[in-house]
Amino acid sequence: MKEELKKKLLASSKEYVDLYLPHISIDCVIFGFHNDCLKVLLVRLDGEKNWLLPGGFVEKGEDIFNAAHRILMHRTGASNIFLTQFKTYGAIRRSEDFFSEMPDDLFHKKRFVTIGYYALIDFTSLDPTIDTFSDACLWHNIEKFPKLGMDHQDIYKGAIMQLRRDLNYVPIGYNLLPEKFTMPQLQRLYEVILDKKLNRGNFYRRMMRYNILIKLNEKVTGFAHTSPNLYKFDPQQYQKALENGFQDSW
Amino acid sequence: MKEELKKKLLASSKEYVDLYLPHISIDCVIFGFHNDCLKVLLVRLDGEKNWLLPGGFVEKGEDIFNAAHRILMHRTGASNIFLTQFKTYGAIRRSEDFFSEMPDDLFHKKRFVTIGYYALIDFTSLDPTIDTFSDACLWHNIEKFPKLGMDHQDIYKGAIMQLRRDLNYVPIGYNLLPEKFTMPQLQRLYEVILDKKLNRGNFYRRMMRYNILIKLNEKVTGFAHTSPNLYKFDPQQYQKALENGFQDSW
Repeated sequence: MKEELKKKLLASSKEYVDLYLPHISIDCVIFGFHNDCLKVLLVRLDGEKNWLLPGGFVEKGEDIFNAAHRILMHRTGASNIFLTQFKTYGAIRRSEDFFSEMPDDLFHKKRFVTIGYYALIDFTSLDPTIDTFSDACLWHNIEKFPKLGMDHQDIYKGAIMQLRRDLNYVPIGYNLLPEKFTMPQLQRLYEVILDKKLNRGNFYRRMMRYNILIKLNEKVTGFAHTSPNLYKFDPQQYQKALENGFQDSW
Repeated sequence: MKEELKKKLLASSKEYVDLYLPHISIDCVIFGFHNDCLKVLLVRLDGEKNWLLPGGFVEKGEDIFNAAHRILMHRTGASNIFLTQFKTYGAIRRSEDFFSEMPDDLFHKKRFVTIGYYALIDFTSLDPTIDTFSDACLWHNIEKFPKLGMDHQDIYKGAIMQLRRDLNYVPIGYNLLPEKFTMPQLQRLYEVILDKKLNRGNFYRRMMRYNILIKLNEKVTGFAHTSPNLYKFDPQQYQKALENGFQDSW
């Protein structure tokens, strides 16, 4: 670990002890969709090789959901966010070893159980910012994903599994796509998340059955013959489906 | 709060501080199926009116999953358990107010973020036991559920929602039904969990498609004409489906 990072960690420890609950952290898997690729926002601590999920701690008088929102807002500047908890990770030594060179009373070196949240975010609205401890905060294409430090690879895998499951229950896309989009764009988003090709006709019928799309009287320009139709989400139906879920399959 | 419970809490506090991580607890929603009813195991603290979900704390050198297993084993004596995490609850004052009459340094009175697990358990194999702090540990039919203390009503609702979702992904029944069962018994279990009537033919076809059942050359005795067939789970196929999930619907 670089001397400068060590100094910064030591300098922050006292303030962190006063401000945050010990033993509980939050890690966020922030998904964005751009150029037909699903991307995840990763940070790199100053001078370190491995990338990490952006995370933070829970203030002593703060709900965990609010803490997750604050961490995300702080990191991305984005407020129009779909944010949902997926799993809590609590193996012993999942994070402690990373701080092995540091004194035992360092706030960060305690054992931490971390609550995983995933977020869906409009790629274009975003302004990723580094914090005191990091030297980089960048989007990474999930098809060329780097090695992550601590147990963050497991947490990332948990998020993508949950996102796949959630596709069956809640609408996904509002925070990931531009306001107007084509059916092939929406299908591509689903294919990237599910990591498989989908049948075009079946996908179309299923999406229309969900009753969350409005077909616009506009077409994409620049196509000679068969210009694709543009759609947008029906905000009320989308919200309803977010709250109540799609009809389940039983 | 009864004086005797206060004394017991005070007496345990020092030991708990040494043994357990502060601020993190585990609560378990333990489901059993008996006489066509879905039941949940609840405890009542000595002299209190409201029931609670059985729970406990995480030892300083223990994985959270192992902690959940230990808590469940201690409470029920059962080891053949389907146990899965569903959600972590961390609103401020979710549990603190319950201990308002107690001194501030009591271990239990700290702010706790609690990790919810649900368990499916063979009703008949079980021997619910009270601990030092409780005066009752009993099964409650979910159709006549009592009022729960703290935020345990929310935690229970989260568990039943997750169990319903999980029906689409993993086989449910092995730990809830006797070794041999009829298709109507299995259907009744699903209906109780989903809280709705299912079509008999559709249910049968879906179950057979999952390929987890073995039809036995035995029938239930005591029926004059149409004795129902008996089935059992195929342990290998069941295990495979538990690990890989059912084919998803996309």
